[in-house]
This record gives sequence, structure tokens and C-alpha cells, in this order.
Amino acid sequence: MIHLSSSNKNAISPTRANDFPGWYQEVVKSAELAEMAHVRGCMVIKPWGYGLWERIRDLLDVEIKSRGHENAYFPMFIPLSYIQQEAQHVEGFAKEMAVVTHHRLEQRDGALVPGGKLDEPIVVRPTSEAIIGASMSQWIQSYRDLPLLLNQWANVVRWEMRPRVFLRTSEFLWQEGHTAHASSQEAMEETMEMFRVYETFARDKLAIPVISGEKSQTERFPGADRSFSIEAMMQDGKALQAGTSHYLGQNFAKSASIKFLDSQGELKFAFTTSWGVSTRLIGALIMAHGDDDGIRLPPTIAPSQIVIVPISREETTQAAVLDYAKHIKQLLEQAVFSDEALRVRLDDRPIKSVDKKWQWIKKGVPIVIEVGMRDIESNSVSVRSRLSIGETDNVGIDALAPMIENELVRIQSTLFKDARDFLDDHILCDNLSFESASSYLASGKGFLLAKWCGSSVCEVGFRDQGATLRCLPSSLEATGSTCVVCSSPASQDAIFAQSY
Amino acid sequence: MIHLSSSNKNAISPTRANDFPGWYQEVVKSAELAEMAHVRGCMVIKPWGYGLWERIRDLLDVEIKSRGHENAYFPMFIPLSYIQQEAQHVEGFAKEMAVVTHHRLEQRDGALVPGGKLDEPIVVRPTSEAIIGASMSQWIQSYRDLPLLLNQWANVVRWEMRPRVFLRTSEFLWQEGHTAHASSQEAMEETMEMFRVYETFARDKLAIPVISGEKSQTERFPGADRSFSIEAMMQDGKALQAGTSHYLGQNFAKSASIKFLDSQGELKFAFTTSWGVSTRLIGALIMAHGDDDGIRLPPTIAPSQIVIVPISREETTQAAVLDYAKHIKQLLEQAVFSDEALRVRLDDRPIKSVDKKWQWIKKGVPIVIEVGMRDIESNSVSVRSRLSIGETDNVGIDALAPMIENELVRIQSTLFKDARDFLDDHILCDNLSFESASSYLASGKGFLLAKWCGSSVCEVGFRDQGATLRCLPSSLEATGSTCVVCSSPASQDAIFAQSY
Repeated sequence: MIHLSSSNKNAISPTRANDFPGWYQEVVKSAELAEMAHVRGCMVIKPWGYGLWERIRDLLDVEIKSRGHENAYFPMFIPLSYIQQEAQHVEGFAKEMAVVTHHRLEQRDGALVPGGKLDEPIVVRPTSEAIIGASMSQWIQSYRDLPLLLNQWANVVRWEMRPRVFLRTSEFLWQEGHTAHASSQEAMEETMEMFRVYETFARDKLAIPVISGEKSQTERFPGADRSFSIEAMMQDGKALQAGTSHYLGQNFAKSASIKFLDSQGELKFAFTTSWGVSTRLIGALIMAHGDDDGIRLPPTIAPSQIVIVPISREETTQAAVLDYAKHIKQLLEQAVFSDEALRVRLDDRPIKSVDKKWQWIKKGVPIVIEVGMRDIESNSVSVRSRLSIGETDNVGIDALAPMIENELVRIQSTLFKDARDFLDDHILCDNLSFESASSYLASGKGFLLAKWCGSSVCEVGFRDQGATLRCLPSSLEATGSTCVVCSSPASQDAIFAQSY
Repeated sequence: MIHLSSSNKNAISPTRANDFPGWYQEVVKSAELAEMAHVRGCMVIKPWGYGLWERIRDLLDVEIKSRGHENAYFPMFIPLSYIQQEAQHVEGFAKEMAVVTHHRLEQRDGALVPGGKLDEPIVVRPTSEAIIGASMSQWIQSYRDLPLLLNQWANVVRWEMRPRVFLRTSEFLWQEGHTAHASSQEAMEETMEMFRVYETFARDKLAIPVISGEKSQTERFPGADRSFSIEAMMQDGKALQAGTSHYLGQNFAKSASIKFLDSQGELKFAFTTSWGVSTRLIGALIMAHGDDDGIRLPPTIAPSQIVIVPISREETTQAAVLDYAKHIKQLLEQAVFSDEALRVRLDDRPIKSVDKKWQWIKKGVPIVIEVGMRDIESNSVSVRSRLSIGETDNVGIDALAPMIENELVRIQSTLFKDARDFLDDHILCDNLSFESASSYLASGKGFLLAKWCGSSVCEVGFRDQGATLRCLPSSLEATGSTCVVCSSPASQDAIFAQSY
């Protein structure tokens, strides 16, 4: 075991402790995950960041399809009249959206100007209930057409005044499931099933523990009868809503006229659901697992799990070292993690190997393997785990594959355990007075688990502290028996926190 | 071998011979591939159609990545000023695009109206050279940053006045590759490499033979120095441009300022390429392989290759038949086609089995397997191939997997051979007079292979016949030695045809 001191100049500056938002921006930048574009509030997702999204998509898609959902694609443009229909019905409808009013650019005095005014403006989808509902109303005639289980992977737009990369951008990528059912019970089961899928996905794939529970009324999706969310904790103690599942009752079915003949020949409105996760999950990965050297990726999600860096200063040995590196790559590609062949990358770019090493550390690759002439001679390699970047392990080739498989398992479970411990340590569930609770929540250092009386006034009782009721957790119980806000008898358990 | 007569009422009406465009619309509808949406020129891609796109994406993505390209995602919104920059530079710039002028919907007199006017209008990408070029100009500093090999899977918008589902829609899905290189030669090699990838992909995966060649000047992508396309023949004899690859020289590098320091320290403009295929490939699949009973899908691309339909009229036997069907499904999922496990679907919906059968025939599933009580007793199944839907083969379970594997291979190669024969039979390469050539092209019944003198006047010589110069084929030679339009000496070989 060789100990190398981590060079400060290569670490992320500022540190998490000094300036968490600044640290986040710097990690996004130096891990080459994304950058804000010149277009207001939009981001460019760079290959490493997009690779994370591809992994999320591929893994989650399996779960979605295995439950009978089919992918489809609906227009990104929604006629204003559809929105109007929904807006009448839904209070609190989000109105910040991109509005298309013209369909042509024309030259006028040498400059391009909008031309071809549309009869009816159209908006770019902020979500697709309206447009998918229009199709559902045509596709569904009888109970035999139900359940209708759809999903789409798409871009959506919500104009953002204060954008933050991955967390809040005008355009983002997501998955949105939309289903229609013959009964309330079945729609509710679907809502809960996908809610559990998200919870399990966050835990097992992203290595992020979450608090899952129902949303209170003010935090519900506009138009939903019930909303459920998984709430992850970032390392600054703030909550990040990482996925939502909505039971829409008959609300959207009524505004989009989704009706069916039941088995008795009676015409009824369907019961619908919707559920989604987005590219903000990448923000969650960064803020849940990153350290002061960059992001740390769970092996399940890492686009490359192992990067091999050939080291040879002399030209005469370069070919031999490269061949050896290729050999190691082939060897490892036979190994397996989580039922998939390992994803191994050989980095033979003509830049300094120390720079490469630091780039991959910042990018959070679980394992970096360095190989040089001495390794060839000893039939071994140097293995550096993202869990302890100051150390390398010299491992003989025969023992390499099983050692790497074990280390990947250890990294996945350690990241989860670290995040789990952090979460446990940052949920306060003492029976606090309103004043103490207020000052704790104002600090933004963690979640408050407390009793809530259920009133809409107390629901927003910590608004001045910048904290909201995140969810009513299904598996946590607060101490005490009185509402943390009004002190009247209370039986519901609530999580209050500042959030992203 | 049992012969069943194909019932006319289930076939597609009109037939290809009677009304090809009408047949196409009916296939798209009855195979549940897609439908036009209420939004002007946009389409809803239904699950079966989207399944085709997913297969195209997954198979092509492997080819793209294996050549060193990385997927990324760029904003869908492009500031007007970027387009302005490009428009000055590029004549013939397409101007039909969706223009976003507002970022809010406001309530006024009870109606929603656009509000929050943008300082600068933005357009929804019709293609992404401009926005990706802006990033490339920041990311590229020196020759060490080259080549930069990017690709994205995205939606794009080109406002269409005369939309046709899959072929010409205002919004469509595509893949667009964008690369930057240090030398002209390297960029040209990239252009040709991806051109060959498309050609091979069409042939080996879509079972569609293509004529590949360079575009003439008027048919080039605006701003490209050289454009190459693969041209497929539809069963009405018209051409469909199925993929393009462009060598952009330094044109876009100059308008987007993509510069690099070469190894001698000299500042130079990069050389760029772009290449893409879109959801119109689904239109190509339909019109290349469909028959009067629906679409016929190459097994490589079929979302499900085999559908199992359990048949049991009596309730007492339903459970046994369903179990048997499940057993057959498991058995077949162990089998392999084209290095992948078979994609098998069990259709246990509560509708008549004869309706199911016809649905799957119209949807082009390569093989439908029917199982009933008699099959359980004889330990066999009834196999119906999409190549001969009026026949079923009774196959014992032991022989089933190899039989199915062989039949899939036969279907894939037969579809290709049929399309290849049709193409060969519909390329006219007699040394025709201009008048004869004109009347042939006006009929729209096939391609004309003829000599062309290279002049821009003769290039558009068949405009009145609705035919254009599709490409200069690299592997076909026309008879004669004089231009089919002007009769002057000519050495270039050209394909003229009507096209989609």
C-alpha cells in the first residue's frame, strides 16, 4: 500500500464546508458534466453528464417496461386552447412557459424577424397531461382499453428566472409516465407502485437513501388528488425532491374528456396517474456523494466504472505499455458488476498521466488503474479506488478481476452507507418548541421530523425560515403529540426542510 | 401444412396498386404506428411505432459510439442572433421554423394570452450546427482537443405546410452527429465513414438496399461543401432520402468561430461534419416492405419478433392453454437471432384470437404462434410466418427454437431480396432521349440512371416532371456518353427520380 498525499491544487475549490453552492458549480464544471448555455436558463449536457442520464434512462426504462408500460412520443407543442381548458380547472397553474407565436423567420432590412403569425399560439410542453389526455380520450372507448399505461422520455420547458444547472433549468430532460384506469383503486395502486419504483431506484442504483411520503396540500401537483415524493438529503442538509408520483383522480379525465364504457355499459370518466424523474437526479448524485475532490459515482451509474491510464515517459516503452493496458481492459471486460459486464475505458490521450488521473478523480470514476513498465515486469497493476484517492494497491493480474468486482461492491455500498448515515445524523426529531424549530430550520442544516396538526396554516408555518413541508413520511414517527407550529394535539408526522 | 385463405376484409384498403398514398396512411393507422396530432403538422408516435424508433436508436447508437463519438445534449432553443450569423453566410437557409417570442401565459379577460415578451426571439432547433458550433468554439483550443466527436438524439422542428406522417412532420425525432477535425482530409474521412455506416445499417438492419452517392450542388445541405445521401426506393418507385452525411469544410467553423492552435502554434479554423437519420426511416420501412395486409418488419427491427396467441374458447381450458403459452415463451427466449435473445410477446388480452392475429399481421410481426388444447396434446404449436400469412406450420416443441431461428433469418433475407429485386427492376438505364426520359420520370414509376454533363441547368432539367437529381451513385454506371438533358458529352452518372 503506497500512500500519496492528495495535492490541494487539484481538489475542488471552494470546499463543501466553505461554500456549498460554489463547490457544486465547480464540480459540475471540472467534472465536465454540463454548462449553462447562452440561451437563457438552458444547459448543455456534456458527454460525461449525458452518460449519467443514459444510465439512469436505461436502468429505469427496464423497471417501467417490466410493469407493462409502453414508451411512446407525443408532440412537444400544446395548443393554447388545451392549456386554457386545464387552467380553468386547475388553480395555481404554472404560467412560465415558452410561447411560440410565429412559424417563420423573414428578412427585413437585412435582419431576421419573426413572420407567419400563428392563428393560435402554442406552448412548449411544461408537462404532457394535456396533450396525452387528448390522445387518451380518443384511444379509450371501453373498459377493455384499460388500463392504458404510457411513458415518454422527452425534453420539457419551464421558463426559469433563477436557473441552476441540473436543478432548475428552462429546458430539462425527463421521463413522464401517464396512465388511465377503470377504477380509483387501480389508479391508486399504480401511483404507489411507481412511487416504490422510484424509491428503490434511488436506493439501489443511485445509492441515495430517501424519505418517501405523501405531499401536503400546498405542495401537491396542481390538479392532483394526492401526490407522493421521494426526498433526498444533500450534504448541506437541504432536501431535493428526486421523483414524484401523482394520483390525479378524475380531474384530468374530466378536463380532457377521457371516458369509457364500463362492463355494465355505463359511461364513466377514467382515473389517471402521472409520475416522473428528471435530469435533476444528476444534481442529486453530485450533492449526495461528492467530496472535496469532485463527484463520486456509484458504480451502477458510472458511464465508465474503471479507467486505465498507461504511464510511460519513454517513447521506446509506449507500445508495450499500451498493449499491456489493452490486455488489462479485455481481462476486466469479462468481469461483472450487478449482472452487467464491467464498463472499462482506456485513456490513451496524449496528455500527462497525472492530469488524466485528476480528471478521472474529479469525474468520480470508481476505480482508476495505472499501468507502467514496472507493472508489466511484476505482472500486476496499480489500483486506485475513488474511496481513497491517496492510496494505490498493487494487484497481481490473477487476482485483479475478483478484487475489482469486490471493490465496486464496496464502493456502491459505502456511498449508500455514507449518505444514509448523513441523513440519519441530520434529521432532528426532538420535541422542539416552535422557536427552536424555527431557528433550526432557518439554519438549513437538516430536516425536522415533527408532529403536524394537519391545518393549512401550520403547513406553511416555517415559510419565513425558507422551509416547507416536504412530505408526510410513511415510515418515520415524530416524538411528541402536539403540532410543532400551533401546539394543538397532532397525529401526523411531517418532514420540514429547506429545499432545492 | 394448412392453407387458410386470407380474408379480404382484414387486408389493407386501398391496396398499394390502387392508391399508394392511401395505402400508406391506412397501414400507419391500422398498424397503430402513429397518428397526426391536433397540433399543426405534429405526430403522436404510438407504442408500436416508437418501439421501431427505439430499435433504430439502440442499434445505430452502438455503431456511433464504437467509432469514438460521445452522446451529449444541447439546448433546443437557438437565439435569433446565431441564426442571423449563419443566414448571412448560408444562402437558401430554411426559414420555416417555430419562433418563441414570449415566456409566459397571462390571464386577460378570462383568456390566456402570451406575456413576458423576450428581448430576443428564439427559435426551436431545425438542426443544431449553430448551437453546437457555439459550444465547440469554446471547447476547442488546440489540436489536442481534436477530433471532437459528438452526437445527440433529439427532437427538431421544421414547420411543414404539407405534413405527412413520418415523412414530413413539423416535429420529428432524429440523431445528429457533429464533429470537428484538424484537417480537411480527416473531416472528409469522417463524412465518408458515417455515410458507410448508414448504408450498412439500412442494408443489414432495415433490410433496405440503397443507392448511395454524392448530392449535386442544388441538393446539397445549405452550407455544406459536399453532401452524401443514401436513397431508398419505395414500392411506388419514388426515392426516399434515408440518411445524409455532410462535409462542411470550414464554413460553419468560420461562422461559429471554431479555431484551434495547430502543432506549429498557428491559429486555424477547424473542419467540421454533420450527419443524421430521422423518424422518416419508419416511413421507409413501411413503404419498402409493406404489403396489402400491412407492414412487414425485418426481425432485426421488430419490437416483438414473435407473438404468442393462446386460443381457448372454453373457460375450463384457459388456464392450461395460458400456461402452455408461457412455457413456449420461456423456451423461445432462450433462442437467438442476430446475436440477441429473441423478443417474444404473449398476447393474453381478452379479445377474440382472430382479431389478435390480424392485428399482429398488420403490425408486421415476423412470426405469430397460436396455441390451443390440441397443441398441448400433440406437444406442438402452430407457426405463421409474415411471409405467408395464409399458412400455418405445425411444429413440435423440440424442433421449435431452431425452426424459429431459421425462419427469422429467412424473413430478414427475403425482405431484403424482395426490396433489392424491386430496386433492380425499377432502375431504368437505357440510353434514353430527353423526351423519353421525361415521360418516364413524370410517371414516377422508378429511378433513371443516366449520364449528366455536370451543369447546373441540366441538374434541374426534370423539374417540370417533378423529378430531381437524387445522387451521383458511386457504384452504378449509366450507359451512353452524353448528358440525358442537353446531349453534350458527359461523364458523370446520375440518378434522377421523384422523391418523398
